[in-house]
Amino acid sequence: MPSIDVCFSPELLPLYDLKGKIAVAVDVLRATSSMVTALAHGVTHIAPVSELHECLAYKEKNYLVAAERDGVKAEGFDLGNSPFHYREDSVKGRFLAITTTNGTQAINRSRTADAVLVGAFLNLGAVADYLRKANKDVVVVCAGWKGLFNLEDTLFAGALAERLEGDFSLNHDATLAAHSMYQVAKGDLMGYLSKSSHVQRLERLHILPDIEFCLQHDVYNVVPVLEGEFLVVAQ
Amino acid sequence: MPSIDVCFSPELLPLYDLKGKIAVAVDVLRATSSMVTALAHGVTHIAPVSELHECLAYKEKNYLVAAERDGVKAEGFDLGNSPFHYREDSVKGRFLAITTTNGTQAINRSRTADAVLVGAFLNLGAVADYLRKANKDVVVVCAGWKGLFNLEDTLFAGALAERLEGDFSLNHDATLAAHSMYQVAKGDLMGYLSKSSHVQRLERLHILPDIEFCLQHDVYNVVPVLEGEFLVVAQ
Repeated sequence: MPSIDVCFSPELLPLYDLKGKIAVAVDVLRATSSMVTALAHGVTHIAPVSELHECLAYKEKNYLVAAERDGVKAEGFDLGNSPFHYREDSVKGRFLAITTTNGTQAINRSRTADAVLVGAFLNLGAVADYLRKANKDVVVVCAGWKGLFNLEDTLFAGALAERLEGDFSLNHDATLAAHSMYQVAKGDLMGYLSKSSHVQRLERLHILPDIEFCLQHDVYNVVPVLEGEFLVVAQ
Repeated sequence: MPSIDVCFSPELLPLYDLKGKIAVAVDVLRATSSMVTALAHGVTHIAPVSELHECLAYKEKNYLVAAERDGVKAEGFDLGNSPFHYREDSVKGRFLAITTTNGTQAINRSRTADAVLVGAFLNLGAVADYLRKANKDVVVVCAGWKGLFNLEDTLFAGALAERLEGDFSLNHDATLAAHSMYQVAKGDLMGYLSKSSHVQRLERLHILPDIEFCLQHDVYNVVPVLEGEFLVVAQ
């Protein structure tokens, strides 16, 4: 039986051997939720890049360019990190380059895996279906916050573990922890997260509707997967 | 109100600023449980050292020398990492030098804190009392397992958070997670931990009685605190 493990911070990734495994990069608030939303609404492919200048350079190639730093849109970019930006008709058929504080790093540092998926509550069921078919060991790579553990990405890992229970072993310590937390929180994810100083900080940025949107389960049936430099919808 | 934060791995310590704070190093299975037991049974002071050869050198200075690697006693040493080794009359009045896979590293990497305590379930209440009197921000430094997150140290952090609730803020994400997990697990800590592959590995070393001993709360009323190179009982 394959197993599901959880890496709570990209800083801990050097301790994980991703070879032969599938990495699921997650930054629920809000990078991977926005990416899932964008691909579901017709963006054709996404370049997840680490640096602002690297991202801005894509503008000359007719990409939409999106950047978030410390929770807000960076200057000179078309879009920020709100999933609502990616539900507009104007994104359909476009290419997108995006850089965020945490999420794009989690994706780019997972590249030694056999495959890198992008997960969010919005596409939880689709990711679970993909993993069940692939039948390989899984590592959920939580973006965290500037290297630190965060609750929302861990809750996603717990939700994914719940969906995979029975078909995957959950006996890694980090997986058991995430699964327990999700059992406590799932009846009221927003209420659970609202105790967090990190989420309180996001609330001060007036993105409560974003947070509520990102906590919805199974809204989109798309699985973004890394192909070379780009995220595309898995077929 | 001071806060309690949790660092799930010594690998993440560079992200924490320990200045002005108290660090509580914890390696429940079994290093810090053994240290607490040793000081409670009359060991006068403990040198926590990182390397085997460094630890063995203390033998010439008439120290008891203790070493564990990968769960078993290292060759040439007087004692291993079982708390039962430290309840003997023979340890009374002796000096002890100890090195373990994870625990001594957590202590030594916490030295930038204003004070470094050693915590375990065995002295949970004593540590909580000390912290309440000190009234400074706290970071629980979990030893983990070779840099990875582990359940038992996190559960200790959650138990300590529970004891400090009301007097300390618990709103860091890692603290909220640890607190939740402890609420789920506290009715049957052994049952909760027995799902863990890490604890199953320890069980294969036939140290189940050690684990049961280490999960007992409030057995000893001692707080080991680092003074220079040595752990001594806080007065």
